Amino acid sequence: VATSESINDLVSRLQRGETRAVARAARFVDDRRDGFVDLLKAIYPLSGQAYVVGVTGTPGAGKSTLVDQLVRALRARALKVGVVAVDPTSPYSGGAILGDRIRMQRHFLDPGVFIRSLATRGHLGGVSRSASGVIHILDAAGFDVILVETVGVGQDELEVARLAHTTLVIMSPGMGDDIQAIKAGILEVADIFVINKADRDGADATVRDLEQMISLDRDVSVRGRGHSAAATLARPPEPELGKWQTPIVRTVATRGEGIDALLEACDGHRQFMSDPAQGKRARRRRIEHELYAILSDTMLSEMERRLGDSLPKALDDLERKTIDPYSAAERLLAGLLREET
Amino acid sequence: VATSESINDLVSRLQRGETRAVARAARFVDDRRDGFVDLLKAIYPLSGQAYVVGVTGTPGAGKSTLVDQLVRALRARALKVGVVAVDPTSPYSGGAILGDRIRMQRHFLDPGVFIRSLATRGHLGGVSRSASGVIHILDAAGFDVILVETVGVGQDELEVARLAHTTLVIMSPGMGDDIQAIKAGILEVADIFVINKADRDGADATVRDLEQMISLDRDVSVRGRGHSAAATLARPPEPELGKWQTPIVRTVATRGEGIDALLEACDGHRQFMSDPAQGKRARRRRIEHELYAILSDTMLSEMERRLGDSLPKALDDLERKTIDPYSAAERLLAGLLREET
Repeated sequence: VATSESINDLVSRLQRGETRAVARAARFVDDRRDGFVDLLKAIYPLSGQAYVVGVTGTPGAGKSTLVDQLVRALRARALKVGVVAVDPTSPYSGGAILGDRIRMQRHFLDPGVFIRSLATRGHLGGVSRSASGVIHILDAAGFDVILVETVGVGQDELEVARLAHTTLVIMSPGMGDDIQAIKAGILEVADIFVINKADRDGADATVRDLEQMISLDRDVSVRGRGHSAAATLARPPEPELGKWQTPIVRTVATRGEGIDALLEACDGHRQFMSDPAQGKRARRRRIEHELYAILSDTMLSEMERRLGDSLPKALDDLERKTIDPYSAAERLLAGLLREET
Repeated sequence: VATSESINDLVSRLQRGETRAVARAARFVDDRRDGFVDLLKAIYPLSGQAYVVGVTGTPGAGKSTLVDQLVRALRARALKVGVVAVDPTSPYSGGAILGDRIRMQRHFLDPGVFIRSLATRGHLGGVSRSASGVIHILDAAGFDVILVETVGVGQDELEVARLAHTTLVIMSPGMGDDIQAIKAGILEVADIFVINKADRDGADATVRDLEQMISLDRDVSVRGRGHSAAATLARPPEPELGKWQTPIVRTVATRGEGIDALLEACDGHRQFMSDPAQGKRARRRRIEHELYAILSDTMLSEMERRLGDSLPKALDDLERKTIDPYSAAERLLAGLLREET
């Protein structure tokens, strides 16, 4: 249990950039130890300076190698870099991204690099919340750039990407027809497309497919772009703003090719978003996504905690088919939610 | 708004297997029209006969072609086949899997095949709930086999897979190192691995990698396998049961190769699960996953509905930094949840 004194101490050491304090705070938040919310409350006002880059894309696209190269290039610019690796496919094992971490051992002794894999235990929504917490910790500790790497292209990863200022979507040639299947969700979050393994057959075709998708999307409308689960909750009327032209950057991460061009594209997007109106809108969206993640995560945690004892009984009834699951859920939730007045 | 009379009418037409009634009920549930919960309550007792097969895997593995071939092979066995296509990467567009659906037009005039894509609007958890609802509808309408196809390998897709009796995980050669990154989550849900595009270079290496993963998993323990977000809620002590040896089937879906072997593997798994103790445990897990999906979806829907008006105000405060998001969330939720006694 964290006392307010020990939290204050941890926060001051964090602000001085002490690596061990960063590691401790991140573990504290990811493990959800008693008092982790108090820690986050203390850290939040100190954050807001870092540039957060989401890195998502299809498995097999070489994402981890690319992240490794980005870390190198950013370190060459003398920037402190944090990496938050999120693997929602492995909610219980935690060790799934060990391979990635081993690959990044070259940065192990560099105090300007901090790498943290999130175990992402728990229910949906918990991923975004842990990620946003660790981002604030790294931010408050003075990391200049934070790369948030996710493994797949599912809905929870898109939610994580929405916490970022700039989101890279990494693909590789030869996705074939399946590029169609994943296009809509990807267009919503991609600020920059990266075709990695661009020296392979089919790179040109993949770039053409993407260009076509981007131009179709532009023609249709800006409606729907960047929406999230929280979108229907509290969306103010939006001013007409210039629209970012999503670039496509080719890289061969294993040879370090295209990394500088990719960082230039990031700079370009950051520049674009520095327009006050764009920046304000983007900031409100990020805040909205974060609040929604915290709300839903807290709500579900409370539900699990409070229902603990009544669930086995409900499952027994369901097994005996004396009740249907919809009625069972209504009955259980009636005990949790306030009556509406 | 559905009256109880119109629901009864829809349910009887559904039981007679009328395609239009099936389509209407599925749309009703996916759109969450008023009364959809009453419809599901009426349908639930009529379901429980169908064999539900989850089909998941990495984009680019040729999943949609494989599903198409499975439908053909099952139709050749004179079985009625339902396909529920879930695309959690596209929560707002709905049309993302149009390509797949076009490809399946060959079944369009066959009343023994019903295909439904879920728009999966809404928040996390809603996907599983809509999918389970449509599964019950198809089940009650007399479909023998229901294929639940998901697009990616994120956490919400794993949740969907957990609604199935048998889950296929489709991969293709050349995943490279990234196979490491996704292995843990996949091992948890895969009952059968399918290496599609097995005529390509690297198929042998991919099979070897998988075999190694499977044997490692077996050595470690059965602990953790099949766990879900709900696992910590209500897990009874489990008897020692025989463990299923996950087979690896090679297919070339574009040429229809390996499809019969795949169906045989499905039969084998179904046979294995017909052991009363295995079947009971698996059934309880499915019920548990379904109840959890319904609980969390209902909880979050209620949260969104009830917070509607107070959210913009909270976002304004967050923009002004007069509050942190953790305190804002606590304040908002205090108005929703009953006080604990």
